[in-house]
Amino acid sequence: MPVPGPGYSITVRVEAPPSASAAGDLTSAVGRVGGVITAFDVVDSHSDRVVVDITCNAMSANHARDITTALEGLPGVVVRKVSDRTFLMHLGGKIEVTAKVALRNRDDLSRAYTPGVARICQAIAENPDDARRLTIKRNTVAVVTDGSAVLGLGNLGPAAALPVMEGKAALFKKFAGVDAWPVCLDTQDTEEIIRAVELIAPVYGGINLEDIAAPRCFEIEARLREKLDIPVFHDDQHGTAICVVAALRNALRVVGKDMADCTIVVCGVGAAGSAIIRLLLQRGPADVVAVDIDGIVDRGREGMDTNLAWVAQNTNRHNKTGRLHDALVGADVFIGVSAPNLFGAEQVATMADDAVVFALANPDPEIDPIEAQRHAAVVATGRSDYPNQINNVLAFPGVFRGLLDAQARTITDPMLLAAADAIADIVEGERLNPSFIVPSVFDAAVAPAVADAVRKAAQA
Amino acid sequence: MPVPGPGYSITVRVEAPPSASAAGDLTSAVGRVGGVITAFDVVDSHSDRVVVDITCNAMSANHARDITTALEGLPGVVVRKVSDRTFLMHLGGKIEVTAKVALRNRDDLSRAYTPGVARICQAIAENPDDARRLTIKRNTVAVVTDGSAVLGLGNLGPAAALPVMEGKAALFKKFAGVDAWPVCLDTQDTEEIIRAVELIAPVYGGINLEDIAAPRCFEIEARLREKLDIPVFHDDQHGTAICVVAALRNALRVVGKDMADCTIVVCGVGAAGSAIIRLLLQRGPADVVAVDIDGIVDRGREGMDTNLAWVAQNTNRHNKTGRLHDALVGADVFIGVSAPNLFGAEQVATMADDAVVFALANPDPEIDPIEAQRHAAVVATGRSDYPNQINNVLAFPGVFRGLLDAQARTITDPMLLAAADAIADIVEGERLNPSFIVPSVFDAAVAPAVADAVRKAAQA
Repeated sequence: MPVPGPGYSITVRVEAPPSASAAGDLTSAVGRVGGVITAFDVVDSHSDRVVVDITCNAMSANHARDITTALEGLPGVVVRKVSDRTFLMHLGGKIEVTAKVALRNRDDLSRAYTPGVARICQAIAENPDDARRLTIKRNTVAVVTDGSAVLGLGNLGPAAALPVMEGKAALFKKFAGVDAWPVCLDTQDTEEIIRAVELIAPVYGGINLEDIAAPRCFEIEARLREKLDIPVFHDDQHGTAICVVAALRNALRVVGKDMADCTIVVCGVGAAGSAIIRLLLQRGPADVVAVDIDGIVDRGREGMDTNLAWVAQNTNRHNKTGRLHDALVGADVFIGVSAPNLFGAEQVATMADDAVVFALANPDPEIDPIEAQRHAAVVATGRSDYPNQINNVLAFPGVFRGLLDAQARTITDPMLLAAADAIADIVEGERLNPSFIVPSVFDAAVAPAVADAVRKAAQA
Repeated sequence: MPVPGPGYSITVRVEAPPSASAAGDLTSAVGRVGGVITAFDVVDSHSDRVVVDITCNAMSANHARDITTALEGLPGVVVRKVSDRTFLMHLGGKIEVTAKVALRNRDDLSRAYTPGVARICQAIAENPDDARRLTIKRNTVAVVTDGSAVLGLGNLGPAAALPVMEGKAALFKKFAGVDAWPVCLDTQDTEEIIRAVELIAPVYGGINLEDIAAPRCFEIEARLREKLDIPVFHDDQHGTAICVVAALRNALRVVGKDMADCTIVVCGVGAAGSAIIRLLLQRGPADVVAVDIDGIVDRGREGMDTNLAWVAQNTNRHNKTGRLHDALVGADVFIGVSAPNLFGAEQVATMADDAVVFALANPDPEIDPIEAQRHAAVVATGRSDYPNQINNVLAFPGVFRGLLDAQARTITDPMLLAAADAIADIVEGERLNPSFIVPSVFDAAVAPAVADAVRKAAQA
């Protein structure tokens, strides 16, 4: 059930009569239809009318229209203009390219551009590795997408994916000082995507793949890792896996269980689920049971692709079969990266004591977290309006900061695990509790700790 | 003959005896070998020695070493460290990606990233043209190269070309507020370059091709113009042509000649020369005579490629043959974009009265401009140490500012000519003289005037 939030924030400019009750009438009208007012500014006042900007959070675009209609229905009130604050923020895009060097006069120009720049070009031509020192390659990551799996919205294409990639670039800079640039490719052909990334690679010190649909994403990542001499990271896979492994480590600390004793159900075997399974297996759980839309993944299933076949070979020790509800019986941990509303409290009750439930489907989790809490000891989601938000922002900025600082040429599982441990360790002994297993995304200590851990692992 | 300049600027840290004559000895030593001191800073002082940073301009890397050696040769002087200021300026690159939106708290994050951004993605998916309003496409240009013709240095490849593209991006922002991003492609195959640019195009509002060798650049430009719905500009062609046409318009004003009466020799029929010829022909000169390494281009020449064949068909009305020196006889204008030291004052003497000479080969012009001045009425070069520097910085920032503001989908000759006229018109009546036919690259009025002219032409 959505709640009014800043993602749907509007500012409505109205003219109202200058009566003593006007402000109360306006705010009541918004409140009656469920809007939450965050600002009320009188911008102009006349003897016969006042002009007011009412800013409020809504639940959806339709809800925003309901609020406007409610205001228009008041006697003497005229709605002049409705501004959507999210759209306003996006006008002209969210990132820009700025010069780090002064260009005030001829001397500056002679160094940053011709003729001085020629010597830098020649130095790099003679020693290509100097590009990692004398150019933006030192600090720059490509955020590459084909727009085939944009957020939870599906295949919107490269242009519609750009606002997400811009946001990601802004986060890279904000949290880790990394320069990130959107590369939205106008193709969904695996070979073309691989070749395009290869061709643009000279400018970058790392590649962050983003919102590319499975199973295409697996081949693209694997092939690019072979071809390029810079690290290739797929945030939907590795970023999510890092955060889940970090959160699970702390959740198990809370409930006092060892990974080696735990049976973990992973629901959803796309990009995120597969990567979670692969990284979890490095930590030696008792068992992992993978579940997808066709039920429990077992070695007898027919028609599996390469990825699913690998999962079947490396999970489900007891070769269970059945549906999700069967998998949950006796399990210690549920990790969902799949679809909304797959089970309820009664299924959590069938899990082992002190169950851990990570219901990460967005925006609507696999189980309502309030329901899950009835029988689970620790519950986490991907949402910002519940405790324990598992958000990739905890991982990717610090990971690339560390990779760039180490001038890493590749990325390995030990680096991913080091990042996970660094995130988990931010939540120290006494702060750790069932409602606080991962740090806040705004905790400024996270990215430097992750960067440090990744850099050390890369240099090891 | 090179002169000491800031492109080769070094800072030498020396320890010297604390004698009264030390400063004089140090500066004299630098001066004796031809270095030009621009700063002299005592950074530390002891009873037995002083530590001094001597910053000076040199002519070349070898000359910088001569200066260091001269200092080391002084009694009691020890050179501690030599810093190259141009290299220092390039450490970590010259541009960065910064956020235009605040990301201070959860509300900001909800608008710039998930969940708010989803609505922006959906709006663009429904109406793709909204990308020109709600994303960086509004203000962003790709600076695309294959590294095959970097400055005058030749085929250095994509990584070594990056410092030039970064410099260009810095200039785009400085002069016109345009966000430009380097795209250095790791291929020199025409088809691959075309396809790569097509694939990355969704992010950009324009394409600036740069330092791509002829004749490949012609096909790449033509094919991309057909395929893309954003303007494609090749700076080495169109940027140079705009500036030459602007400068020639003012040079002819100075000498009081009409374009329709002028015979113009264009030497060099690569990217720049061909584009200059094409744009000049729009202005209706009496004749253009093209000359390349094989002599005057005439319709009888064999084995011409498409570009040269077009030039042969559309120039040289009287079907002259011979070498450059033959072409110059009686010509009103020489425009060189070719090679150093092709002719001398005696050939300028054979040109028509009040000859105009643009010797634009860099760093060494087709004729020493001091020599050219002996018989020519107006002389221009591409160099910053002579009057009348014809520099593309006058054109490209304003051109793209105008194209982006008009949301142009293509670029046409009328837009290029409008840009040329805008540059020429900055040098108004009384300021116009043989040593001032183009504005300074630092004249802040140029880019807005060019932008305005291009925007109007695009909207017409």
